[in-house]
Amino acid sequence: MSQDYFRGDREYFPGIGCIPFEGPESDNPLAFKFYQRERVIGDKTMQEHLRFAVCYWHTFCAKGSDPFGVDTQVFPWDEPADPMAAARARMDAAFEFFTKLGVPYYCFHDRDMAPEGADVAGSERNLAAMVALAAERQAETGVKLLWGTANLFGHPRYMNGAATNPDFAVLTHAAAQVKAALDATVELGGENYVFWGGREGYASLLNTDTRRETEHLARFLDKAREYARSIGFRGTFLVEPKPMEPSKHQYDFDAQTVIGFLRQYGLAGDFKVNVEANHATLAGHSFAHELQMCTDAGLLGSIDANRGDPQNGWDTDQFPTDLYDAVHAMLVVLAGGGLGSGGLNFDAKVRRESVDMEDIFIGHIGGMDTFARALETAHRLRANGALEQHRAARYASFDAGQGARFESGELGLAELRDLAAESGEPERVSGRQEWYENLINQYM
Amino acid sequence: MSQDYFRGDREYFPGIGCIPFEGPESDNPLAFKFYQRERVIGDKTMQEHLRFAVCYWHTFCAKGSDPFGVDTQVFPWDEPADPMAAARARMDAAFEFFTKLGVPYYCFHDRDMAPEGADVAGSERNLAAMVALAAERQAETGVKLLWGTANLFGHPRYMNGAATNPDFAVLTHAAAQVKAALDATVELGGENYVFWGGREGYASLLNTDTRRETEHLARFLDKAREYARSIGFRGTFLVEPKPMEPSKHQYDFDAQTVIGFLRQYGLAGDFKVNVEANHATLAGHSFAHELQMCTDAGLLGSIDANRGDPQNGWDTDQFPTDLYDAVHAMLVVLAGGGLGSGGLNFDAKVRRESVDMEDIFIGHIGGMDTFARALETAHRLRANGALEQHRAARYASFDAGQGARFESGELGLAELRDLAAESGEPERVSGRQEWYENLINQYM
Amino acid sequence: MSQDYFRGDREYFPGIGCIPFEGPESDNPLAFKFYQRERVIGDKTMQEHLRFAVCYWHTFCAKGSDPFGVDTQVFPWDEPADPMAAARARMDAAFEFFTKLGVPYYCFHDRDMAPEGADVAGSERNLAAMVALAAERQAETGVKLLWGTANLFGHPRYMNGAATNPDFAVLTHAAAQVKAALDATVELGGENYVFWGGREGYASLLNTDTRRETEHLARFLDKAREYARSIGFRGTFLVEPKPMEPSKHQYDFDAQTVIGFLRQYGLAGDFKVNVEANHATLAGHSFAHELQMCTDAGLLGSIDANRGDPQNGWDTDQFPTDLYDAVHAMLVVLAGGGLGSGGLNFDAKVRRESVDMEDIFIGHIGGMDTFARALETAHRLRANGALEQHRAARYASFDAGQGARFESGELGLAELRDLAAESGEPERVSGRQEWYENLINQYM
Amino acid sequence: MSQDYFRGDREYFPGIGCIPFEGPESDNPLAFKFYQRERVIGDKTMQEHLRFAVCYWHTFCAKGSDPFGVDTQVFPWDEPADPMAAARARMDAAFEFFTKLGVPYYCFHDRDMAPEGADVAGSERNLAAMVALAAERQAETGVKLLWGTANLFGHPRYMNGAATNPDFAVLTHAAAQVKAALDATVELGGENYVFWGGREGYASLLNTDTRRETEHLARFLDKAREYARSIGFRGTFLVEPKPMEPSKHQYDFDAQTVIGFLRQYGLAGDFKVNVEANHATLAGHSFAHELQMCTDAGLLGSIDANRGDPQNGWDTDQFPTDLYDAVHAMLVVLAGGGLGSGGLNFDAKVRRESVDMEDIFIGHIGGMDTFARALETAHRLRANGALEQHRAARYASFDAGQGARFESGELGLAELRDLAAESGEPERVSGRQEWYENLINQYM
Repeated sequence: MSQDYFRGDREYFPGIGCIPFEGPESDNPLAFKFYQRERVIGDKTMQEHLRFAVCYWHTFCAKGSDPFGVDTQVFPWDEPADPMAAARARMDAAFEFFTKLGVPYYCFHDRDMAPEGADVAGSERNLAAMVALAAERQAETGVKLLWGTANLFGHPRYMNGAATNPDFAVLTHAAAQVKAALDATVELGGENYVFWGGREGYASLLNTDTRRETEHLARFLDKAREYARSIGFRGTFLVEPKPMEPSKHQYDFDAQTVIGFLRQYGLAGDFKVNVEANHATLAGHSFAHELQMCTDAGLLGSIDANRGDPQNGWDTDQFPTDLYDAVHAMLVVLAGGGLGSGGLNFDAKVRRESVDMEDIFIGHIGGMDTFARALETAHRLRANGALEQHRAARYASFDAGQGARFESGELGLAELRDLAAESGEPERVSGRQEWYENLINQYM
Repeated sequence: MSQDYFRGDREYFPGIGCIPFEGPESDNPLAFKFYQRERVIGDKTMQEHLRFAVCYWHTFCAKGSDPFGVDTQVFPWDEPADPMAAARARMDAAFEFFTKLGVPYYCFHDRDMAPEGADVAGSERNLAAMVALAAERQAETGVKLLWGTANLFGHPRYMNGAATNPDFAVLTHAAAQVKAALDATVELGGENYVFWGGREGYASLLNTDTRRETEHLARFLDKAREYARSIGFRGTFLVEPKPMEPSKHQYDFDAQTVIGFLRQYGLAGDFKVNVEANHATLAGHSFAHELQMCTDAGLLGSIDANRGDPQNGWDTDQFPTDLYDAVHAMLVVLAGGGLGSGGLNFDAKVRRESVDMEDIFIGHIGGMDTFARALETAHRLRANGALEQHRAARYASFDAGQGARFESGELGLAELRDLAAESGEPERVSGRQEWYENLINQYM
Repeated sequence: MSQDYFRGDREYFPGIGCIPFEGPESDNPLAFKFYQRERVIGDKTMQEHLRFAVCYWHTFCAKGSDPFGVDTQVFPWDEPADPMAAARARMDAAFEFFTKLGVPYYCFHDRDMAPEGADVAGSERNLAAMVALAAERQAETGVKLLWGTANLFGHPRYMNGAATNPDFAVLTHAAAQVKAALDATVELGGENYVFWGGREGYASLLNTDTRRETEHLARFLDKAREYARSIGFRGTFLVEPKPMEPSKHQYDFDAQTVIGFLRQYGLAGDFKVNVEANHATLAGHSFAHELQMCTDAGLLGSIDANRGDPQNGWDTDQFPTDLYDAVHAMLVVLAGGGLGSGGLNFDAKVRRESVDMEDIFIGHIGGMDTFARALETAHRLRANGALEQHRAARYASFDAGQGARFESGELGLAELRDLAAESGEPERVSGRQEWYENLINQYM
Repeated sequence: MSQDYFRGDREYFPGIGCIPFEGPESDNPLAFKFYQRERVIGDKTMQEHLRFAVCYWHTFCAKGSDPFGVDTQVFPWDEPADPMAAARARMDAAFEFFTKLGVPYYCFHDRDMAPEGADVAGSERNLAAMVALAAERQAETGVKLLWGTANLFGHPRYMNGAATNPDFAVLTHAAAQVKAALDATVELGGENYVFWGGREGYASLLNTDTRRETEHLARFLDKAREYARSIGFRGTFLVEPKPMEPSKHQYDFDAQTVIGFLRQYGLAGDFKVNVEANHATLAGHSFAHELQMCTDAGLLGSIDANRGDPQNGWDTDQFPTDLYDAVHAMLVVLAGGGLGSGGLNFDAKVRRESVDMEDIFIGHIGGMDTFARALETAHRLRANGALEQHRAARYASFDAGQGARFESGELGLAELRDLAAESGEPERVSGRQEWYENLINQYM
């Protein structure tokens, strides 16, 4: 199926067909202005570069509640009273949406796809049934699974943590969920498996043994890896940093914290980092910074593409429409050789006031167009070469001679001191930040 | 010298003698209300527990300028026109102050103690001369050196970084300074040596090769260690995290970032972390959090005791007068076995509007009284045992049985899943945060 | 009823009686350590000074959900399937709690007390029925209503605003709710009526006519005043500032914004400000700052006593246990002549992990003890007089002579210039901030 | 003089001529890519719309010091040892720069242009001499003065405030400076006069009488107005909000605070607001928000065009190169009828690492190109009409019928309630934020 879309027993987005490319002059809000799936940028198509994924949770499960108000969205797939019937309706709606939008991937939590059952086995049965249906839908549509994960934060049992809960009994439930979610991910050919530890942190240091909890988390991830590999999972595990919310402090604070943790516990061979833009800014970093730190460590796994509000201190999960964020991100991604088995997952939701069904399309279109433009801008910037040449030239003194000897460890402090004494005061060299910034604007 | 104070050729704080303990009812602002040097708390005196240090830079060098205004402080020790004569006057003032205040330690940067010379050798000569004088003063007064460091951020040559400067020539100057500062620290019996990399970061990602810069930093620290050990330094190296300012982003963002870096580059055996309260809050952490992370890693080295302003986004370096911060800090410190060879260094300055000479005393007295009370409060809380017993009890399910088997790695995901299936839904256990918080208040 | 408590058909907090005062040495978490209702501080009892109120919403309606997880609290008063039966049960629980805790006041939103009906008239009937019951309970127990309000943010109809909704139809519903809530407040003898405009702001400037919306808000408040006065309400109207959340931006950003708005639209005669501590810090202010701004304007109405988390950027609504916040607040309140017809309303909730019924008591006890200590500390500080005398002395140059002439408007710029030219460079006068801060600590 | 530039005794920017427009494809960093002075957008040229001004302080006086490092910039105009000779050299450099860059306006503080003298009269003489020279230069070049101001924050005497200093003697010096700066502004035909009260705030509430200080500030502004009008100043007075830095809290926190203050003290007739982008974000607002609030109040006076760093909490004063900020700003400005007698003043500085003389040009070119693009984008958006029509349509229910009656005050709460009861539950209307955001991107 290429330009056609999936339709189950009912059409959930009637009046909206496959989203066409109409170019930058179109005034059709339901058309791409920039994203052309098959357009080649450098050596790959836009689709191959960007590997867009739609997330199951925000787009089909979240209905607009916030801490001060109840749901505002009314979704037709929620009409069936039976939870499993509603889950099947939701899945039909999801694949209809994926194919109308034209994305190659999706992502899900266990509880997005199938309702919690009366007990562990019941939950497993629910999930297995829905996974079987998802496998069919994937085969019919060609849409693939970028990653699966388990929701270890929504249920009250996880209020004090999941893998880091002080109560071992809760940890066993987390393990049961992860086991089933790994089974599902393997069954659906998922290319990655994600851990986001929203409750793996603390509300108060006073009642918390942070060291013991961190060690439990490492042990838990180790056992998840062991199990996944035993059932044939060959993909990448991803840990997604976030500094806080819902926890007062989350152990996976930012990229550097996660990188240190993965290395400390021998997980860095199999685990990488899933960087979310909004989580970066909550941690006091730019999105590009987090991507760069992961790239430097060889641990950039995948991206949750969204954006926060610079004036608000919580996860607003808006669609990524800031071209600067996207250009800076794509500069890092292209320099690092691309997204590999990761992708750009829209962990984003329409505002709770955006209650028309078409708003969901408009949100995703905005994000896809933004990254398409950013890809092109970053590619042109790199093709031109000025930015990277100027940057490289700044470090030329380390490419040969004494600088290179320092890099290779041949010079001690005393020898370095003697070089300083001989050469006298260095010339001041401009950092030229304004030149770099103007260049970005010129290419945008 | 116990109650007497050092006085050089001139008395710089006339009218102020040794600061006495007068108890909580005293209305003398130049007396301690709580800090009694020889009072025994648990197994050590207050002085032994708290190991207070005065910092040379804020207290004797900084004169109140800020980004919008020039100096406001007029210090008598700056009167000599000759820089070395002024340095000697400043040293006399410093030892007079240390002994009047009654602190056992001080800390310094090379450039605090001796002016930069015309060239590398000139700077070395200036420093050596002042170190010789400091050694005499230490011998006369019994005041000791907690740590030394080199100022690698003030001079324009470091504007693009010191050890991470793109220009190798600048790096050699940084090396020259560190070499001389290590010589000085060893000469003065310093118990630690600190690296704070204020310019080791970036102003813009666009013009920066973060990986290369980080590797240069690691190489630089490695060479500093090699040299220091070669000249007989047996103390601890400390890296002091700060997220930003003056850099837009500093590589040593927070404790976890530094811990990961030290481990990654094989430095963790000799290097520990110097935690500054104000830097913690700039990084989005509580002071106690940063101390806890270091303690968990076995890498808590020393403390820069100050406080930031929760409504301002820069390093205000105020004196640490918040009892909550201090109590939470001392709970972590006492639980970790004390400060070891570290101390509580007042990296704090009086407000630029506090232009009376006695204000400097009043600021330090406030900080010392605060930590003295905090020490006592934390000690009583620990002696009572309620807090730690409640916390430990939360984790009892991991102390034996299946929980213990999980901790030792004996249980895989499948076995954990089966335990969950068998045991059913866990009971919800209150985190009781309010109880813990009320307990702290009750003991304060 | 003095020491006895209210009990309806069922006891909702069995095993917990009236909370006694047991003093600072008690290890009973269900006893006051500092708050003694009848203890006289200055010219009033603690109860008269502090005028504590319990809020209906957090304490009896909120069940621990957050943006990432569902309810964790299981309340026995929610057991009845019929919403009105549950509302009656909740009211019994509430008055049992008020009387066991020993607070003189409570506060409520219309929807806390009575469920929304099928239509406007139905909602009104539900509320009227519950108000009648509340009136009985108030009479039986002596507990009084500090203020009532209408919930104009929870229902989806208010997603784009209530009084500032672009759709007039929604505004009429807001008016209907306010009318009924005013009726209820008058019926129950409420001393104030509050407007918190959580949705009165914008999600995006792009789709918003801020001027028109602000004018609608002013008109709406004017009409509410007109109606309330017509039915005999003689209390104070209060507007409660908050900068954001749930809105991206709320029009009532902070105290100064509200004060300017009230004056601009001729509302300042009848409306004052209800300051919430957590909202102050979200706006980048200290709690005391907001209180001071209102006091300076003669517009301090009442206080929502809680606290935020300095590392988290959302409304955490924790119990106010920080003594510094409370002491600084009480210094402003006492200097301003007390709370008048306002009070200290605990707009605070136990953490969602605090699921024991006694946690609700422990939270409130912590807040009450904190303010009791703060009242005493602030009173002693004021009785001593040192702080206020030093502060007043700083301004002495305006009390007479040319300074006083300037204050009364007699000196123009040219005359001031001549005075400067004559008197020469002024002496630098220390601000002595460290002295003031140490004084606070000494009294705490 | 149109395309030619001013050159004094010495050329300070040799090798750089008048900055030409070369279009978006040029790779000349010293050319405009978008700004074409005479290009007509709507009814005015770009130059008439944007009214760019260069600021004297950052561009010619600030030399790169920050709280952790000394100056990095070496300016040839600082070479003369005599302060007045240096001031004349600086002025020549300034007019050379203005004319090479091609801006119509500049702005200055008294102390930027002329050094402080030995006493009040000496300072006045220095300023008068430089003003005479500036008048000549203006006449020669056609460059005009957008606004003048007095530096009431740099000198130590202002550490506790200027117009709000507790010491009347300091206030008189502030008055002397403002008098002289008003004289200078009138002499130079300045179109506005600015008050930025960097020290008009507090370091600590404990030692501050905020009400008295605020009243002093109002009195001071009133007297400044009186004097200025008496000497023939017919321009606008501007107050520039900033929330903090250098003060812990500044009284002129944000636009709404200033608007409220101006109205409260009868100043709103003559005073408007000068909005600075970086100050907006420090206050927790977007730049566009602050502009909108001023426009709504009819009090938008002028703009300090720069940008902050979203990850840093101080005034970074970077050049405004973010197109989103600029487009959102220009949408508000165009909707409000343009800048009037205000302008876009680059209160921005090159990074301290940007030490080449051409960096100063590159920074300004980046800012000018950004606003030129933004002007064009905003103009096209408005010409298209879609955005404003959609926004207006949201409020249609208030344009006639009952909604209009509400607006005009004809409907009371009871009538509104009856309308709600009759009309039943309103339909949910999408806010369509994603549609608006995509539209902005499409036009950019």
